[in-house]
Amino acid sequence: MARYRALIEYDGSGFYGFQRQRAEFITIQGELERALSQLTREPVVVTGAGRTDTGVHALGQVISFTIEWRHGVSALQRAINANLPEAIVALSVAEVSSTFHPRFDAKCREYNYYVYNAQERSPLRRKYSWHVRRPLQVDLLNEASTKLVGVHDFATFGLPPQGKNTVREIFEAYWRRDDEFLVFVIKANAFLYRMVRSLVGSLVNVGLQIWWVSDFEAALDACDRNGSAPAAPPQGLYLASITYDE
Amino acid sequence: MARYRALIEYDGSGFYGFQRQRAEFITIQGELERALSQLTREPVVVTGAGRTDTGVHALGQVISFTIEWRHGVSALQRAINANLPEAIVALSVAEVSSTFHPRFDAKCREYNYYVYNAQERSPLRRKYSWHVRRPLQVDLLNEASTKLVGVHDFATFGLPPQGKNTVREIFEAYWRRDDEFLVFVIKANAFLYRMVRSLVGSLVNVGLQIWWVSDFEAALDACDRNGSAPAAPPQGLYLASITYDE
Repeated sequence: MARYRALIEYDGSGFYGFQRQRAEFITIQGELERALSQLTREPVVVTGAGRTDTGVHALGQVISFTIEWRHGVSALQRAINANLPEAIVALSVAEVSSTFHPRFDAKCREYNYYVYNAQERSPLRRKYSWHVRRPLQVDLLNEASTKLVGVHDFATFGLPPQGKNTVREIFEAYWRRDDEFLVFVIKANAFLYRMVRSLVGSLVNVGLQIWWVSDFEAALDACDRNGSAPAAPPQGLYLASITYDE
Repeated sequence: MARYRALIEYDGSGFYGFQRQRAEFITIQGELERALSQLTREPVVVTGAGRTDTGVHALGQVISFTIEWRHGVSALQRAINANLPEAIVALSVAEVSSTFHPRFDAKCREYNYYVYNAQERSPLRRKYSWHVRRPLQVDLLNEASTKLVGVHDFATFGLPPQGKNTVREIFEAYWRRDDEFLVFVIKANAFLYRMVRSLVGSLVNVGLQIWWVSDFEAALDACDRNGSAPAAPPQGLYLASITYDE
């Protein structure tokens, strides 16, 4: 038996999120475990670095699993991909130490959120971004985003996946233009449940001048889940990358 | 009654092409006519500039229709969009002369074809591009593409939508890089049925060094439909824009 780590891309559109659920709900973890079990002919448990919600995409999810395999990592990657649906792919596979854990060992997680800021909705972009009709002020989005950097209690913007600790450290948070999109880039040691989408919903309020930057700061300081704007929709969110000490 | 012209974007994924078919096949033209008939409460005929195939997308299809409408073009655009499915949108609407015909009056049509050239398939790009696994030589793609410019008989690469004339004039034909994509740009007075996809299939043979540029030229000169490589798949093709004398 050996432990493997794989870099996974997926289109979250058709899935009930990453985490395995009852059999009638198709999930990313469930599909990965099914693909691996077909190879090894026994049950395989997959651990992921981030538990993305229903409809959320990933460009660089990291997973790990322990299996018996004698044909090398390239053949393993090809075999996994042959068993996965079109909406999921292993971009790379490597052998790792038997103690590697993709969630506990992660040092930094990056999420991106794509806002399509145009007067008219776009059929070709609708499944992969959030359409915001009124013009967003990028300087205001960025001014509010800088308030996030550092160690803060983010209770306003999400719930802890387990326990009660809502303190997280944000390494970077900014917006960049990418053609017709405004992309929110955020890197942190870890995130709360719904945190990026709640932040984007609230930051967009600032960018539309519904909130002042000071309203956003006050919401953050209040540590009150009711102080967040409604979460931005899932189809604009991408788990971009996970960083480990090598 | 007045005549209107509208600029239309659509995600072709779920449709049986542009052209109206029997009721059980959902088409772009059918959906546009349905949306307009809901407004006017009588049958409306929509004419399109290009009859895109099943699964082909449009960023700038042009349509025209004649209706009775008293509330101005902005209200007309909003009303149409409220009646259209998410996969189709009117980006603009304008009143035009009663003699305007989007197909017969078009001077230039531009199509784009997106090739995703990477070793591994991409779930997030699969519905909007063609995945070509082996590396393409862009200089060879462009060398072959220049042979297309000018007036040629394109019988090798497609069938005429009506009649027997397979001569068309190509104004421009080249490839550009767009991040991880190679994009084929082609502008012509008109196209044959399946022409862009047959050209892309054949050009990719050149880019993969399966064909010499001289094989591509010989195929063009042969005027033999059997001389084309298999057509590239529909999901990479976009009707980009239509140009008229103003």
